[in-house]
Amino acid sequence: MSPLRVLVAPSGYKECLHAAEVAAAIVTGLRRACPEAVIASRPLVDGGEGFARSLALASGGRVEPVTVPGPLGPPVEAHIGWLGGGASRTAVIEMAAAAGLRLVPPAERDPLRTSTRGVGVLIRLALDRGAERILVGCGDSGTNDAGAGMAQALGFRFLDDAGRELPPGGGALARLARIDASARDSRLAGLEVEVACNTHVLLAGPRGVARRYAPQKGAGPAGVALLERGLETFAAVAARDLGVRGLTSLPGGGASGGLGAGLHALLGARLRPWQEVALTACGLDRALAETDLVVTAEGGVDGQTPDGKVPGVVAARARAQGVPVIALAGTIGADVGTVHAAGIDAVFGTLGRAVPLPEAMARAPEDIARAAEQALRGVLVGLAMARRRH
Amino acid sequence: MSPLRVLVAPSGYKECLHAAEVAAAIVTGLRRACPEAVIASRPLVDGGEGFARSLALASGGRVEPVTVPGPLGPPVEAHIGWLGGGASRTAVIEMAAAAGLRLVPPAERDPLRTSTRGVGVLIRLALDRGAERILVGCGDSGTNDAGAGMAQALGFRFLDDAGRELPPGGGALARLARIDASARDSRLAGLEVEVACNTHVLLAGPRGVARRYAPQKGAGPAGVALLERGLETFAAVAARDLGVRGLTSLPGGGASGGLGAGLHALLGARLRPWQEVALTACGLDRALAETDLVVTAEGGVDGQTPDGKVPGVVAARARAQGVPVIALAGTIGADVGTVHAAGIDAVFGTLGRAVPLPEAMARAPEDIARAAEQALRGVLVGLAMARRRH
Repeated sequence: MSPLRVLVAPSGYKECLHAAEVAAAIVTGLRRACPEAVIASRPLVDGGEGFARSLALASGGRVEPVTVPGPLGPPVEAHIGWLGGGASRTAVIEMAAAAGLRLVPPAERDPLRTSTRGVGVLIRLALDRGAERILVGCGDSGTNDAGAGMAQALGFRFLDDAGRELPPGGGALARLARIDASARDSRLAGLEVEVACNTHVLLAGPRGVARRYAPQKGAGPAGVALLERGLETFAAVAARDLGVRGLTSLPGGGASGGLGAGLHALLGARLRPWQEVALTACGLDRALAETDLVVTAEGGVDGQTPDGKVPGVVAARARAQGVPVIALAGTIGADVGTVHAAGIDAVFGTLGRAVPLPEAMARAPEDIARAAEQALRGVLVGLAMARRRH
Repeated sequence: MSPLRVLVAPSGYKECLHAAEVAAAIVTGLRRACPEAVIASRPLVDGGEGFARSLALASGGRVEPVTVPGPLGPPVEAHIGWLGGGASRTAVIEMAAAAGLRLVPPAERDPLRTSTRGVGVLIRLALDRGAERILVGCGDSGTNDAGAGMAQALGFRFLDDAGRELPPGGGALARLARIDASARDSRLAGLEVEVACNTHVLLAGPRGVARRYAPQKGAGPAGVALLERGLETFAAVAARDLGVRGLTSLPGGGASGGLGAGLHALLGARLRPWQEVALTACGLDRALAETDLVVTAEGGVDGQTPDGKVPGVVAARARAQGVPVIALAGTIGADVGTVHAAGIDAVFGTLGRAVPLPEAMARAPEDIARAAEQALRGVLVGLAMARRRH
């Protein structure tokens, strides 16, 4: 019989392990159970840190280092990913590489001042290199400027009521009176932009991004209020000057401090759930066509998993091709029985003993490897039984 | 294809669930995964509470209620199990039913006073009903009298140096001067007695039963010392009067406060690891012959499991017949990889989330059901894959 082909397509374990680390642990375990298996790995990252690198490498593309202005102005080392295969004109950038919270020292965190200017420079550099399509990953941002800095780096002018250019940062946005697109980079007209983001984050209102995320980016209560006013002002001005309405309730408009709304209003970007973008870009469907078994994982699996979480999305794609799916999870919800209808054939807990969460997280890599090994061993029991019963 | 035949053969989860409860939880989970499966259940108990009932019922036999003297004297409701099939002359009794710690109210716990007299009455009643063979389960005892009370109920005389019969309880044993077997029940000559016990418990020395277990039965330090002296005295007198030497180091001699040594010296009983007795009596090998897959379980599975723990013993028997084995466990040791060589094909953790041990124990029944369901689902994935790859 030909060797077993296994596709490893996990999410990260939130605040514990990156998707690539989870995938590596799973592969380690699978090899212990079945050294001769042919294993393909497609770790699935959200739009934040690791997005560009993971999509570029998964598609057989490359990663190019570049230098861009950081969120506070001084330059930072960033990178542009390029998809491989037939999609080599597609650049993949992640906003976190140019304007991520990680790039702002804790003492200087202040979304009133931080700017997405570096994101605009990444787009310009990608255009310089011939990009016809850009995937922008949102997540892990340190900014709340609705993409104003990004837009200014591409030739848009954000003006106050005296006609002066706004300074960098979300704090100035409440004084926005007019957006002038006349001098924007002309190559933007032919550019297709797709954004991979959390589409549950909105620009304003109770689910608005400033209220939900600006505090962890360094804003106090007064700052949050000013940022909220700035985002609402941006939405109003964009509606009038660019003819783009409904920004405040656009799914994903709030992503990365309103960068989602900015990319949509200013560059015509389509905002998509990051899961979809990631799966398409890493060629999941092609990989599934050559797979006997999928192993996916997430920190938690429960009744919500089929609604857009990585294992649910992977299972939907796998089921379309008749490939069985096993999911690993640190936490299993009481309602996990509902995931089977969504194409997840079995769910295995990765915990090896009863311990509090911090210890469980420290043990996660070895626990995941062990659970992956044992899960595959369970499948192999079934394969052997089938031979015996024939 | 004929329906899948699964044999459920777990241990209990120590201080959490009895074997029958673990088995019931596993069956619940397996039925969820595969309603049409043919499931046989063989929960494996040690020699303590549940031993007689479980062996009798597993063999298709019956349980007979009887009344016997309790550990403090007043009568208690006990029972005798009778094996079914061709072994209907075999009685199964558990010492805990007549002299268990549970039968002594906490305020009255005192192994200087408690007696195994009721165990002797159980044996006598079994003889009255025609027993030719008796299995005695040791475990969960509230006594430390080396079986003196049991022996007295069967006509043995335990005498002090003035020729007076010793009063009940382990406290008197240090005054034992002579054992007179002349008036013992004559039917004992034709009786075969097997003891199912923990063979790691010895009568005396550092692993001696009084030192290890008498405190939890209610003895203080002076009491423990007196009990130890009593057990050593019994061994010396038995060597001289009955010609049975080496009792202090006999494997299992310390079981149930020295009842193991007493049964051996006085009734010629063979002391066996309870696991072996239980597996044989419940007809595990016969059940395995009609099984496609075994699911076993224990609170913890690790590198020690193959050395006489239930899943290890079950796996050894299963492997002899080529039947695959899946084990479930609440706690999985880091060295679990070594169990596969012993015939356990896969081990699945039953925990569904990172919680401290008490909460994990409260969740155990549902966690076990879920893990059993998912484990079988994993096996079914393999079975389905085999059909697909053919």
